[in-house]
Amino acid sequence: MQEKNISMSVIRRLPRYYRFLEELLKEGMEKISSRELSERMRLTASQIRQDLNCFGGFGQQGYGYNIAELHAEIGSILHLNGDRRVIIVGAGNLGRAVSSHLDFKRFGFKLIGIFDRDPAVVGEKIAGHIVRDAKTLREFCAEYSPKMAILCIPREFAGDTVKVLSESGISAFWNFSHYDILGDYPNATVENVHLNDSLMALSYEMEQKGC
Amino acid sequence: MQEKNISMSVIRRLPRYYRFLEELLKEGMEKISSRELSERMRLTASQIRQDLNCFGGFGQQGYGYNIAELHAEIGSILHLNGDRRVIIVGAGNLGRAVSSHLDFKRFGFKLIGIFDRDPAVVGEKIAGHIVRDAKTLREFCAEYSPKMAILCIPREFAGDTVKVLSESGISAFWNFSHYDILGDYPNATVENVHLNDSLMALSYEMEQKGC
Repeated sequence: MQEKNISMSVIRRLPRYYRFLEELLKEGMEKISSRELSERMRLTASQIRQDLNCFGGFGQQGYGYNIAELHAEIGSILHLNGDRRVIIVGAGNLGRAVSSHLDFKRFGFKLIGIFDRDPAVVGEKIAGHIVRDAKTLREFCAEYSPKMAILCIPREFAGDTVKVLSESGISAFWNFSHYDILGDYPNATVENVHLNDSLMALSYEMEQKGC
Repeated sequence: MQEKNISMSVIRRLPRYYRFLEELLKEGMEKISSRELSERMRLTASQIRQDLNCFGGFGQQGYGYNIAELHAEIGSILHLNGDRRVIIVGAGNLGRAVSSHLDFKRFGFKLIGIFDRDPAVVGEKIAGHIVRDAKTLREFCAEYSPKMAILCIPREFAGDTVKVLSESGISAFWNFSHYDILGDYPNATVENVHLNDSLMALSYEMEQKGC
């Protein structure tokens, strides 16, 4: 497998391929041509060939792609077969939604703890986990070595929390707060989900289209 | 104000400018140079000048940007001063998080209804709204003409729901489901939030960086 110099825009498309291929598998399909895949995904066939060639190319001329094989390969490229330990910090509405809504196992993660600073929430059971006191983050990390933290806390608490987590060996973050982690920790691995920004972009598009 | 031919990548950055400027306002700052703004936002100064020039340019040579003015202008470009009526379909964990977590008013939206198909949830009060039966979507839309719908439902129900909403005059969607709205409604205005894809991208990045 060649994984060198692959642009983030290609990587960004891989989850979508993965989801589409999963659906095709569920439909019982075994192979698909790049043309058919392109129609389903609304990408050009040459785009698809180009994307998948980045990883060495899976298709056979005149046969198309073996769906199960391609699905497994993309899953492996995305490293979805791991079991990296994850914690969620913040058990408000967003933390609850993330903990209950996401199938972590499917993506190679394993949720091992949920934390909150609010005594009224600590001790509650969410998604099978007793919410722990955020004050115990440091000792928890020392004992269980989580690899990634999901930040579902307001911006004003995020800086202190990331400091503790970073000192405890966590360098990967799924960040729902508006705290700019990379600004303070340039070497961290960060994926931001900025719901506000998404809503503002939609607002703009609606205005442009006269919705 | 010139708003022609602005690329989506510039538009995508505007919410971030807007958030940053809001923080500066809170800090009591009145003006900022593009260099200072660039350091804070980790964009190049020339990138910032280029972005803001798309809209006619706000800065004055040697003075910098008037923060309140720029903030208001970007808010106006993003049309955050409207009060477009919005409904949420799906009152599960995700719908609850979205309804309670987002400050719709701040972004020019007004939440007017939450819907679910589950009788056990219908009638419950969430974020100040009694959850309505999804069966009543059509008549609700006829009466209150919401302009945008937030889809917090599983993919398998999304197709039917979007059909009803589309027939009821809604053409804008904030889509948390994996249903491909644009595939079936190419003229719709859609902003997708694909949490699964984001998590998969993070998985890839973690693997690349050896986290």
